[in-house]
Amino acid sequence: MSEIIKIAIDAMGGDFAPDNEIDGAILAASENKSNLHLILTGDEKFLAAELNKRKNIPSNISIVNATEVITMDDSPSETFKTKPDSSLAVALNLVKSGKANGCISAGNTGAVLFNSTFKLGRLDKVGRPTIGSIFPTTGDITMVFDVGASVDCKPIHLFQYAIMGSMYMDIMYGIKNPSVGLLNVGEEKSKGDELTIKTYELLSNSKLNFIGNVEGRDILKGKCNVVICDGFVGNVILKFAESVLDFLKTSFKNYADESVMKKIKVGMMRGTMKDVLKRFDYQNYGGVPLLGVKGISIIGHGKSSPLAIKNMIMKAVEVHKKDLINRTENELRTINFSV
Amino acid sequence: MSEIIKIAIDAMGGDFAPDNEIDGAILAASENKSNLHLILTGDEKFLAAELNKRKNIPSNISIVNATEVITMDDSPSETFKTKPDSSLAVALNLVKSGKANGCISAGNTGAVLFNSTFKLGRLDKVGRPTIGSIFPTTGDITMVFDVGASVDCKPIHLFQYAIMGSMYMDIMYGIKNPSVGLLNVGEEKSKGDELTIKTYELLSNSKLNFIGNVEGRDILKGKCNVVICDGFVGNVILKFAESVLDFLKTSFKNYADESVMKKIKVGMMRGTMKDVLKRFDYQNYGGVPLLGVKGISIIGHGKSSPLAIKNMIMKAVEVHKKDLINRTENELRTINFSV
Repeated sequence: MSEIIKIAIDAMGGDFAPDNEIDGAILAASENKSNLHLILTGDEKFLAAELNKRKNIPSNISIVNATEVITMDDSPSETFKTKPDSSLAVALNLVKSGKANGCISAGNTGAVLFNSTFKLGRLDKVGRPTIGSIFPTTGDITMVFDVGASVDCKPIHLFQYAIMGSMYMDIMYGIKNPSVGLLNVGEEKSKGDELTIKTYELLSNSKLNFIGNVEGRDILKGKCNVVICDGFVGNVILKFAESVLDFLKTSFKNYADESVMKKIKVGMMRGTMKDVLKRFDYQNYGGVPLLGVKGISIIGHGKSSPLAIKNMIMKAVEVHKKDLINRTENELRTINFSV
Repeated sequence: MSEIIKIAIDAMGGDFAPDNEIDGAILAASENKSNLHLILTGDEKFLAAELNKRKNIPSNISIVNATEVITMDDSPSETFKTKPDSSLAVALNLVKSGKANGCISAGNTGAVLFNSTFKLGRLDKVGRPTIGSIFPTTGDITMVFDVGASVDCKPIHLFQYAIMGSMYMDIMYGIKNPSVGLLNVGEEKSKGDELTIKTYELLSNSKLNFIGNVEGRDILKGKCNVVICDGFVGNVILKFAESVLDFLKTSFKNYADESVMKKIKVGMMRGTMKDVLKRFDYQNYGGVPLLGVKGISIIGHGKSSPLAIKNMIMKAVEVHKKDLINRTENELRTINFSV
């Protein structure tokens, strides 16, 4: 008999919680009845009532009570103390105690980061956990680390991101010896700010497949598998990239509004546009794990659709099956960090 | 009789020099015969021969000899000493000595930055000059400062960028009291790294129209007129934005290659696509002035087309006519920098 994997879902996080969380859970649970069990965390009565509004509820979904909800207005670093019984905290407690193999949340990203770090603890030797994000490219599969877990990073943090990011691409995507690029303002070794110049040294002297500096223009080209940067830079780039789709939609709409002929032209190309531009839609990528903590915590976009929630759940399952956390920790142990 | 404005052109800078420089100069000179004189700098004989290959050369173009050429491989900070007679240096000397009202270059950006700063000198109170870039938006006209003039900025530098950027939007675009946003990882005042948290304070206490933090997604929305950031972040964002057009072109090409029907679909929408996406083409924006130096130095993209070169020349003319440099310096003098 195969193992039943248990995933906790912060059912009160996310802009459309609990609707999208419940609908996403039903999708995942229905498709994986024999080997998946999902645990929704949040107000027990409320969630049960919401769940019962749906048809064909699979039996492999249960609810664990949580009396508090973290909102987008809550200060992330304080929620650990001020809301100890939040739906997020309860989901993480299930992971910590072994009652769940992993958890997912589309809630306040900062709160997920802080609560996961404090509750699950950091992996040996990891200074700061990191969040990566897949970018659409016309070349190699590319993930950018860090996209906002921490700012004012030190070179050693960026070096650790490179190791964790490489392990992630290897284990999750089967890319052996993934290429690593350091995001910078120029290709030459001498280019950059204090942080990147020092990080360049660390990466050069490592056994990673470091290809040197890459520039902003190289991300969408897919020049390397892992792009490393400070969380400030990564966060700005990610949000900029996420806004391109809306920019294009609005631009085409404005163009169509200029004349009847232009409206017809845009109308004719709508289907093709949609086909091509869907790669820019972050909903399709599901969530990303917080790397560097002792447990599986998948972070999703606040606006995650039911499909995105399902993808996050399945990502948690995959991370568990592939034993990402233990394998990353073992790899980190082999590296001498006294640099 | 109206003033004849003289603009020096670094005819050996740029990826397609001197062809595009010469063709761009001919365009600008032909359209402005009575009030514009252009001076090409570079190897006198070579440029004369190249110029003579063209038809209908207007008489308001002359050549000033320069024996050296700065390449993209030259270390920007060293060219000031190693190539004192470069086409760029000679163009800047013409500005410095008053023989030209301004100069333009599509050459090595770092070299333009260093040579301009050392030759022309900085404006009173300016710690570091800055380069801005117009971004296409669906809202207000938006320029981002700094896009790569300097990294590891201090709060006072970002504050000065905000002042110079605001003056630029006011004088060049007629936007009174332009709105200023600080690029950050979140909207709240408490968000950011050390640099942005301190810069927020300076901007809050200034008489600028500071609207607070803006995020990566707000740039293309045109949420404010002036977006302020460290040159590292701005450079990465600018190059990322520049790559979007290529990404889309390649994505549509790959889609078209999938089947005959898809090829027909993409073929049908090509004209409309081009119409809408040309706003993403940086060639249309011409160059941007290096702000904070005592003289007019317009920096352009290495790949500048003849049209882009013409636009750069006309930008220099406009900056001269509107007396941007003196007016910016006067504004800076009214501000107490002992913060």
